[in-house]
Amino acid sequence: MSAYHPLTIEEAIAIAQGMDGFFPVDANLSCREIGDGNLNLVFHISDNASGKSLIMKQALPYAKVVGESWPLTLDRARIESEKLILEGELAPGLVPVVYRYDPVLALTVMEDLSSHIIMRQGLIAGTRYPLFADHISTFMANTLFFTSDFGMNQQQKKLRVGQFINPELCKITEDLIFDDPYTDSPNNSFDPAIRDAAEALWNDGALHFEVAILREKFLTNAQALLHGDLHTGSIFATPESTKVIDPEFAFYGPMGFDIGAVIANLLLNYAGQGHWIQDGNERAEFRNELLSTIIDVWNGFESKFRALWEQHGTDRLTKAAPGYLDYYLGRVLQDSIGYAGAKMVRRIVGLAHVADIDRIPDDASRERAQRLALAIGTELIRRNRQASSIGVVNDIVITANNS
Amino acid sequence: MSAYHPLTIEEAIAIAQGMDGFFPVDANLSCREIGDGNLNLVFHISDNASGKSLIMKQALPYAKVVGESWPLTLDRARIESEKLILEGELAPGLVPVVYRYDPVLALTVMEDLSSHIIMRQGLIAGTRYPLFADHISTFMANTLFFTSDFGMNQQQKKLRVGQFINPELCKITEDLIFDDPYTDSPNNSFDPAIRDAAEALWNDGALHFEVAILREKFLTNAQALLHGDLHTGSIFATPESTKVIDPEFAFYGPMGFDIGAVIANLLLNYAGQGHWIQDGNERAEFRNELLSTIIDVWNGFESKFRALWEQHGTDRLTKAAPGYLDYYLGRVLQDSIGYAGAKMVRRIVGLAHVADIDRIPDDASRERAQRLALAIGTELIRRNRQASSIGVVNDIVITANNS
Repeated sequence: MSAYHPLTIEEAIAIAQGMDGFFPVDANLSCREIGDGNLNLVFHISDNASGKSLIMKQALPYAKVVGESWPLTLDRARIESEKLILEGELAPGLVPVVYRYDPVLALTVMEDLSSHIIMRQGLIAGTRYPLFADHISTFMANTLFFTSDFGMNQQQKKLRVGQFINPELCKITEDLIFDDPYTDSPNNSFDPAIRDAAEALWNDGALHFEVAILREKFLTNAQALLHGDLHTGSIFATPESTKVIDPEFAFYGPMGFDIGAVIANLLLNYAGQGHWIQDGNERAEFRNELLSTIIDVWNGFESKFRALWEQHGTDRLTKAAPGYLDYYLGRVLQDSIGYAGAKMVRRIVGLAHVADIDRIPDDASRERAQRLALAIGTELIRRNRQASSIGVVNDIVITANNS
Repeated sequence: MSAYHPLTIEEAIAIAQGMDGFFPVDANLSCREIGDGNLNLVFHISDNASGKSLIMKQALPYAKVVGESWPLTLDRARIESEKLILEGELAPGLVPVVYRYDPVLALTVMEDLSSHIIMRQGLIAGTRYPLFADHISTFMANTLFFTSDFGMNQQQKKLRVGQFINPELCKITEDLIFDDPYTDSPNNSFDPAIRDAAEALWNDGALHFEVAILREKFLTNAQALLHGDLHTGSIFATPESTKVIDPEFAFYGPMGFDIGAVIANLLLNYAGQGHWIQDGNERAEFRNELLSTIIDVWNGFESKFRALWEQHGTDRLTKAAPGYLDYYLGRVLQDSIGYAGAKMVRRIVGLAHVADIDRIPDDASRERAQRLALAIGTELIRRNRQASSIGVVNDIVITANNS
């Protein structure tokens, strides 16, 4: 079983049984493959008698997205496992515990989070997550600060940049987020009803200019080790608990890319809630909560990052320079707003969509949600470099809602 | 001779004799060690009969700067050799040809440039280099463009970032250029006569703010593969020929760091010329030529970079976005001006100085040159983010000269 091959159920069980001390020696393990088969095999292995269980995630040597298939490096399993372990050190309790990583099999054995559900599904169902902003802002402040030049030895950081060079998965982002939506690409996918809006994106030079700047920062700005794909489908949640999963897109990039992903996916849910919550008052309340969650996410991130900087900052000059941290965080905010916009736009006209909007069965409701998401997303992109407070997100949403 | 050890003269000759076809079989080779012994051994090996010669450069496992010694990775020889070979491909004729690289011995065998002299010495002697601006702007436009995301495959570029991660030599820059001069560091070295000016640097919060921004870009902004130490002591020149040497500081960083190094060192010579050229008219003419060389260096870089972008640009979105290249080059200009300032300041108050100024024997003349260089350097730093044309350098120099 040493060379790489996709595991069978039986092989997965055998590996679990070989993990000394995890399951009782005589456990009768059951195993289900619960992955979607697009990128990874995911085995859920459990022992009914003891109630113990774990997850095995094995990378497949290809990616399937919306029917297409292309080869994909197994090295992403190493990146995912190493990033997960690091996140567990920097933000304990906010990621699954990694029990074992097997580089040959591209296999990560980790904590079972079956008590949680994917946050995107929870939000679609109208679930409230009152602790989410606190949790995710801690996760981002800790993982971003302590992997940046401000929070770690700057020579060690350079080696870590090398450890997380991730060309193949970055290319997916570069193409699907920062290129295809802004041109008539065969990778795009959108409802024919909004073709006019898609074409408007292709012909908007001022928008391309802003996206070009965001794209360049994504390509060059090695601020911190990002999760790289921090949408609500990469988060397991309950109202009490938040667990960030799937960091296979990890690489050194601009902090705002992670923060923007969180903001964008809350806003995509906001746009979709025109359908999912039918009661007007309830819907308005839920949407307001989404907007205040966004503000809390940013404010939480900012205040926690400031506290870490004060207590653990390693860089003498930038720490001593008056006003520098304000300036720095101001630009992280702007990046977050810009990347949030880019991530909304691509979910409407690009290759990969989100259930919050795509699964709306009614054509007119879905189109309204799509147009609202595009209106918000493009405006976030247009105004990102002028933004001076997170309040601009609210302003943009209210304006888009009223137009 | 397989394990690393510093070569003797005899061993260097033996290696040269073993290079098939370079020297005649029966050549009677002579060899001199011509390095300064601070970082490398440099052997000049020649055959009088055939007139052929070459240079062998071997990295030493330590660095000595102004009497201090610290251990230093031999990996810098790999970086230097790989960067030199790449530069030879991208800017042929503007770097020495590499004949061989031996990773175990940390040894690079390369073209002998004894017909050239170190440009800094030439400038001190009042030599004019009418082709220099054209040559160095070609070198920078080609090496920077074709290693950036605009001029090469963006996934290959990420691998190249990894190939040129250079923590130890970057740390020298981070400390000596972006930290020590702005605090009372034991690494600093300056004439007691200008202690007031050094202390002013330590207490100038607005200056620290700008240096902090420049420092952060140096740490995070992987725009292109830089030479990393592009001062006039890293350039062999004749009035007809320019050869860039010693790229052991190579790493992925902001383009303006290389361009700024060239500008700074022309300006340091400018400041020193108050002493070296005694005749007032001649001095004024030479100084004007230095200033117009700076303008030609920037303009040459900009126009060549634009031409490469048009002909060889690989990035669809940034190429299609109206006004993006103007915006991008505007920021490269600002960075160049800021880094030029930082590189001037450190040569006056930091650890490593330049002969253009340090070797002025007369105390009063030397102090005048030092104060002029500091006045120009600090103003370049202060105004970098407002600069909209290379003409600002002229303005700053004229103002500093008149005050």
